Amino acid sequence: MQIPPFSSAEYDRRLAAARAAMHERDLEAMIVTDPSNQAWLTGYDGWSFYVHQAVILPAEGQPVWWGRMQDTGGARRTVDIERTGIVGYADHYVQSTERHPMQHLSGTLADLGLGGGRIGVEMDNYYFSAKAQQVLFETLPAATLVDGTGLVNWCRAVKSDEELDFMRRAARIAERVCQVAIDMAAPGIAKNEVAAEVTRAGLLGVGEDWGDYPAIVPLMPSGSDAAAPHLTWNGDPMREGEATFFELAGCYRRYHVPIARTVFLGDPPDHFRRAEEALLAGMEAGIDAARAGNRAYDVANALGAELERAGIERAARCGYPIGLSYPPDWGERTISLRPEDETVLEAGMTFHFMPGLWVEDWGLEITESILIREDGPAETFCSMPRQLFVKGSA
Amino acid sequence: MQIPPFSSAEYDRRLAAARAAMHERDLEAMIVTDPSNQAWLTGYDGWSFYVHQAVILPAEGQPVWWGRMQDTGGARRTVDIERTGIVGYADHYVQSTERHPMQHLSGTLADLGLGGGRIGVEMDNYYFSAKAQQVLFETLPAATLVDGTGLVNWCRAVKSDEELDFMRRAARIAERVCQVAIDMAAPGIAKNEVAAEVTRAGLLGVGEDWGDYPAIVPLMPSGSDAAAPHLTWNGDPMREGEATFFELAGCYRRYHVPIARTVFLGDPPDHFRRAEEALLAGMEAGIDAARAGNRAYDVANALGAELERAGIERAARCGYPIGLSYPPDWGERTISLRPEDETVLEAGMTFHFMPGLWVEDWGLEITESILIREDGPAETFCSMPRQLFVKGSA
Repeated sequence: MQIPPFSSAEYDRRLAAARAAMHERDLEAMIVTDPSNQAWLTGYDGWSFYVHQAVILPAEGQPVWWGRMQDTGGARRTVDIERTGIVGYADHYVQSTERHPMQHLSGTLADLGLGGGRIGVEMDNYYFSAKAQQVLFETLPAATLVDGTGLVNWCRAVKSDEELDFMRRAARIAERVCQVAIDMAAPGIAKNEVAAEVTRAGLLGVGEDWGDYPAIVPLMPSGSDAAAPHLTWNGDPMREGEATFFELAGCYRRYHVPIARTVFLGDPPDHFRRAEEALLAGMEAGIDAARAGNRAYDVANALGAELERAGIERAARCGYPIGLSYPPDWGERTISLRPEDETVLEAGMTFHFMPGLWVEDWGLEITESILIREDGPAETFCSMPRQLFVKGSA
Repeated sequence: MQIPPFSSAEYDRRLAAARAAMHERDLEAMIVTDPSNQAWLTGYDGWSFYVHQAVILPAEGQPVWWGRMQDTGGARRTVDIERTGIVGYADHYVQSTERHPMQHLSGTLADLGLGGGRIGVEMDNYYFSAKAQQVLFETLPAATLVDGTGLVNWCRAVKSDEELDFMRRAARIAERVCQVAIDMAAPGIAKNEVAAEVTRAGLLGVGEDWGDYPAIVPLMPSGSDAAAPHLTWNGDPMREGEATFFELAGCYRRYHVPIARTVFLGDPPDHFRRAEEALLAGMEAGIDAARAGNRAYDVANALGAELERAGIERAARCGYPIGLSYPPDWGERTISLRPEDETVLEAGMTFHFMPGLWVEDWGLEITESILIREDGPAETFCSMPRQLFVKGSA
C-alpha cells in the first residue's frame, strides 16, 4: 500500500495551490485544523482528531504536522517524512483545565519563526474551537489571526486524475452497499440488521479495493420518520406500506461517493409516484445543467423548475462538493447547489447532487454523485437504476 | 421503543443538575452545542451535528432545541415535545459566506428574553467553532459570554440506574464484538474484513438490544503500526509474528462500553510477555484503587507503580469517563485518570481504564470499562478474559 496514498507530484500540486491561496490573502502561515485538509496536504490519517492537532503550512519551507505526542507515531506512519515535519505535545495538555494544546502550538510556531505576521486559521471548523482561537490569540500577541475558513477546502474542489481514480473505486463500493440495502429491505426485517449488512459490505469493499469508514453512518429513516433527513436506525422492523430512504456512501481511502435510493414496501400512493416522477425529471434537468461554465445555481434552478411544475416546494440546497473527508461530514463545505450560489462549475469538480424531499410525514431521496466534465452534462459516478424501488407490491 | 429513551424523572434530574451548575456560575442560560450534552438533556438524536445546532437551556422554563429547519423533523421525533421547544433556521444559513447560523441563534435568544446577561457557551467543543463564538459575541452585544466548557459534561459523570442499564446492554455488545475480533484474527486475513465483521456484530447487537454506531470506529493497528494508538485499518493481511490490538466498543442507544484486547499471531517475544504481565498487574492494582472516596490519581499511580517496577515508562493518561456519546469521541472530556487529577471518585462514575502501551515498534492494549461502586474495587462492565490472546503459536 502506497503511503501516503498519492504521488509526490500530487502533493506538490496541493501545496502549491494552498500556498497560492495563502499568497492572495498575504498569509505567512496557515494553521490547518480540518482533518480532511490535513490529510489532503500531507496524507496524515488516523482517528486522533478528537484532540487538538493541526498542519502548520508556512508560506515557504516544510509543512509540519503537529499533534499529541502519542499520535506522532501515526504521523510517522502515514505522511511522507521527507516532506513533512512532525512535532508532538505532551499528554498533560490533553483535556486539561490548567493547560491548553494551543499554548504549545504557539511555542511551536515561534520556534519555526512564525510567531508574528498574518496567520490563517479555520475559524468555522469543528476542529478549531472558540477556546483554541482565544488561547492562540493570547499566546501569539505579535501575530494577526486571519479567518482562513475554507481556504484549503476551495483548493480541493477540482479533483486530479489520481483523486478521480479513488472516487471511481469508492463508486463501486457505493453501488455495492446500495444494492445490499435494496436487496435486504422487506417487511419485518429489523433496521439495525440492514445497517449492519450495509456497513459490512462497505468495509469489505470490492475486489482489491478495501473499504474505509464513511464520514457519516447510514441514514435510513422509514415511513413518517423519513420526513427527517438525519435519523439513523433503531431495532424496529421495516413495515409494509412504508418508504425507507437509504443515504449511504462508498469510501475508498477517505474518498467518498455518496448515493441515496428509496425503497417502498407495498404499493406507493399516488402522491409518492408523482413526487418520484418530478424528482427524476428534476435530476435529469439538474445533471444536464451541471456543465463546465454553468454556475452552481443553474443546477439548483433546473431541479427547482421541474419540482415547481409538480407543485413541490423545496427550500434546502440540493448538493455540495465531495471527496476526501472525515467525520462528521462528507461534504467539502464550500460550494452549495442553491439559487444564490454563483460559483462557476469547472471540469473535475465533484458533487453529491442531493435533492432529498422531506415532507410532513414522508420522505424520498434519490441522489447521484456527479463529476463535471470538460463538455456535456455531468457524469454520474454510480450506475444504479435511478428510480423508486418498489418491493412486495400486490 | 421509548422516545426519548429515558423516564421523565430522569430528564428532570438532568435538567436540575445542569441548572444547579448554571446557578453556581450565575448563568441566565447555557448554549449547549455538544451533541452528547444535547441528547443527555433532551433526547435529541440524529446525525445533524455537522451543521450548527444547540440546546438553549434557560435558568428557568423550557429548554429549546435549535437547529437547521430540515432537522426540526428529527427533533420532533426524538425529544419529548411537551418538555422541549423546537426552533429551526432557514437553509440559506447553512455553510454560507453571507450569513451565519449564530446570527439566527442570537435572534432566537432575544425572542426568549435571553439577549443579555451571562450566557454560558462550550468554548472548547468540536461543535462550537471560533467563528460561532465571534458571531454570537457580535450579535449579542448586551450579553456576556462565559466559558461553560464541561459544565453539562460534569453533570453526566455519575450515572443513574437507567443509564447503567443501558451501559450493561452495551457491555454485552462489547463482549460480542471483541470475541469476533479475537476469533477472526489469523495470518492472512485482510484487516478490513475483520473491521467489517466486527462492525456488523456491533450493529446487530445482542438479542433484543440492537446496536448503535460507536462514536469511534475500530482501532486495530498491527505489528510496528501498533505503536500508533489511533490508526484504523487497511486491506493488508494480518501476519504471523505480529500483534494487533483491537480497541472497540459496544454501543446501545448512544451509551458506550469500550474494550480493548490484543492478539498475537505466533509466539510472543519475551519483552511482550513481560509487558503483558506488568500491564495485568497494573490493571489489577488500578481497578483495586478505583474506589469511591479515592481520587483519579490513585488509579493512575497504582498502575504506574506496577509498570515502573517492570521498567516501563508510560506518560499518557490511563483513562477517562464514558457514557453517552457522539463522534468524534466516546469520552466525556472531564476527569482524566492521571497523576495530576485530584477528582474524588464517586459511586456511579464510569471510566474506560485504558492503559495502552505504545512503544517504539509495537503496542499492547488490554483495557476495561469500569464502574465505581459504593464499596470495594470497581466493577468491570465486560467479562472477557483479561490477557494477551495468542493464536497459532508453535
